[in-house]
Amino acid sequence: MSHASSTNETHAPELRSFVESANLPQAEFPIQNLPFGVFRHGEDERVGAAIGDQVVDIHRLKELGLLDGQEAAATAARACAGPSLNPLMGLPAATVSVLRLALSRLLRDDCSRRDEVAKALLPQAEVTMLLPADVGDYTDFYCSIHHATNVGSMFRPDNPLMPNYKHLPVGYHGRSSSLVPSGTEVRRPQGQSKAPDAAAPSFGPSRLLDYELEVGFFVGQGNALGSPIPLDQAEEHIFGYCLVNDWSARDIQAWEYQPLGPFLAKSFATTVSPWVVTTEALAPYRVAAFERASDDPQPLPHLSASDNAQKGGLDLQLEAYLLTPQMRQQGLEPHRLSRGNFRHMYWTAAQMLTHHASAGCNLRPGDLMASGTVSGPEKDARGCLLEITWRGRDAIELPSGESRTFLQDGDEVVFRGYCEAPGAARIGFGECRGVILPAVS
Amino acid sequence: MSHASSTNETHAPELRSFVESANLPQAEFPIQNLPFGVFRHGEDERVGAAIGDQVVDIHRLKELGLLDGQEAAATAARACAGPSLNPLMGLPAATVSVLRLALSRLLRDDCSRRDEVAKALLPQAEVTMLLPADVGDYTDFYCSIHHATNVGSMFRPDNPLMPNYKHLPVGYHGRSSSLVPSGTEVRRPQGQSKAPDAAAPSFGPSRLLDYELEVGFFVGQGNALGSPIPLDQAEEHIFGYCLVNDWSARDIQAWEYQPLGPFLAKSFATTVSPWVVTTEALAPYRVAAFERASDDPQPLPHLSASDNAQKGGLDLQLEAYLLTPQMRQQGLEPHRLSRGNFRHMYWTAAQMLTHHASAGCNLRPGDLMASGTVSGPEKDARGCLLEITWRGRDAIELPSGESRTFLQDGDEVVFRGYCEAPGAARIGFGECRGVILPAVS
Repeated sequence: MSHASSTNETHAPELRSFVESANLPQAEFPIQNLPFGVFRHGEDERVGAAIGDQVVDIHRLKELGLLDGQEAAATAARACAGPSLNPLMGLPAATVSVLRLALSRLLRDDCSRRDEVAKALLPQAEVTMLLPADVGDYTDFYCSIHHATNVGSMFRPDNPLMPNYKHLPVGYHGRSSSLVPSGTEVRRPQGQSKAPDAAAPSFGPSRLLDYELEVGFFVGQGNALGSPIPLDQAEEHIFGYCLVNDWSARDIQAWEYQPLGPFLAKSFATTVSPWVVTTEALAPYRVAAFERASDDPQPLPHLSASDNAQKGGLDLQLEAYLLTPQMRQQGLEPHRLSRGNFRHMYWTAAQMLTHHASAGCNLRPGDLMASGTVSGPEKDARGCLLEITWRGRDAIELPSGESRTFLQDGDEVVFRGYCEAPGAARIGFGECRGVILPAVS
Repeated sequence: MSHASSTNETHAPELRSFVESANLPQAEFPIQNLPFGVFRHGEDERVGAAIGDQVVDIHRLKELGLLDGQEAAATAARACAGPSLNPLMGLPAATVSVLRLALSRLLRDDCSRRDEVAKALLPQAEVTMLLPADVGDYTDFYCSIHHATNVGSMFRPDNPLMPNYKHLPVGYHGRSSSLVPSGTEVRRPQGQSKAPDAAAPSFGPSRLLDYELEVGFFVGQGNALGSPIPLDQAEEHIFGYCLVNDWSARDIQAWEYQPLGPFLAKSFATTVSPWVVTTEALAPYRVAAFERASDDPQPLPHLSASDNAQKGGLDLQLEAYLLTPQMRQQGLEPHRLSRGNFRHMYWTAAQMLTHHASAGCNLRPGDLMASGTVSGPEKDARGCLLEITWRGRDAIELPSGESRTFLQDGDEVVFRGYCEAPGAARIGFGECRGVILPAVS
């Protein structure tokens, strides 16, 4: 794998920005992060980078002459003029890295051209964040063994994990048209479902609406149809990471999913956080991959690499919050439902990507993959209500005195994610949020 | 539903074109058809319509002033200037219909401007046909009850059909990146599989490579996220139909597909025929939908409409052929493997589309849906080798003296489709073909 070295200049924890909000202890977007996203400001829709509470208009930096004399950075900046990250994602990782270094240098507190750079800054409060990419294909995996075991044991107590689970990263194709950026309201779906004791199915609003806390990653440079991607090159094809809420209608899902998998239960909306944290920015937080038990099968050779085992994991802390209309009315803060970590996934992102291309499937810049629900070994690290309430058996008590098994209209779900490591800055992923609207009548 | 009336001027069987090849008895593209596709000629990539052995460059017609004074036709022609049908598909069906009528009138043998029209004609032999659309999402259904019963009975003899089968059109999301136009070579995929008696899975070239004979249809105007499409409006959202080969690696599929459905076994290539036969052109061949048995459940109200029952079916004859390298060497013709008909599908295209949007999923112009393998009630109407050879048990004998259970390298699969009806012309779909290349080493 080609993680940028952790001594990379952009990671140094002592770096500070002249954008003061980036230097606050709990800042999600300090100068060590510099995630990319797509913003709308007036008529313009362009690629920017987050710094503190500001967004840097990268194309504007170039217009201001601040990237002159740096050919690779200028090339990358030209790819930032439009309303999606796809052109930037299609460039070599090294070219994007040069742009990121240029941004880092321009935004530091010792930058001599800070007055000029400031002309390319916009308050995040004044822009609207859009989907980061025009996603050609969206793929959803199922790579938390804790989630798969929990869910499997509800439906197949004797045999929770399928025989293939420890041999390949199970995944399926999702729907790209219904990807929406964080903040988009989510209409409760209608659909067919059948209660176990009902004679026939019925059609109506989902009664078991759930969220799924997932980590997404975007494909950078792609591969040609028929040309697999070796595991030791997989990281170079991952542009960066985001948070994903794979909203799920459990009643629709249970009825429809056999034998071809989830379909309408997950294609009414999938929420994506707007800032893509680059693979390079995440280098300091890489950890060993999931430690397999001694009686677990070793991955087949094409899914094995010592570098993947040693650094394929990512220490990414994940939190899910719920805010009900009543809580909002009472002025209560969102209630934390869970806290988990991406390092507990049975398969690494690199393994997911290499598996995906192994039969010849072509991946394109901007394609999105999501990990599947991230649940950890602990009970408070479960990433969806299905698991937290154990299929509705154990209701959650909220500070408002309310309880929940599944989501009700008006409920808001918020995800947060951040990375910390010794000798490195704390960086955040921003929010992934959505409010449930009532079903159409 | 809003099928164009069968008295529509463009359907009249007595119409003839000044393009003589369109008037031959077995012509696939007589003047009553006029399917749309995307061709490459030199540097140009544009939308055209097929007439006999020629393609009409629609944008060129407009440049020649042949659509002057017809505002809707000119609008539609403007949408034909680029390398995909998506802009045309996004227009109201009525606008596309006006263009089709204009094309019909310009191509008739009594057209007074035929010398000018001829300037916009190119021999099909001189152009390369591309994918008809930039497919945002590709969805594959499973709507032949004969196919589902055959396949189900191989794997679950006691219970071949899942309980949901007769209540909703079962479908799943496919991969759009690996859609390829007819004629593209198909690389044999590698992947994980596990023989029933093997202790562990292994990775290597698929040994059970199959084709699936399917009918595809493209979405015309779409719907907003959260806004279902009523069944009585569904046909207006179907731009037209094509042939689809959903190549399938049965060994990879059997190992990977539980619990989330087919994934890599079908995403190494999916072949699409280049000419899209419009819903309007197919009006004369509409027939009653599948006749449910008296003990079959009636579809729920949102999937029921008398018009759908009476005219939701399509009498589209489908044939699959095989040509092996040895047959090619011996100068033999492709061998017909099956002959089926799209009218035997348990669910209509309109029901598939309405179901797809019923939970709020947004469909976009250019989205592709495929029917699933079209198998009929007769043994010679089975649409894939898995069924024809009954999982490899009964080899096919070929005129070359060879036999086949599944596809070998160098084998070519060709699909053809055509419609006939009393008082109507015979129209064809052209070919959907592909040759198998050896796996990467």
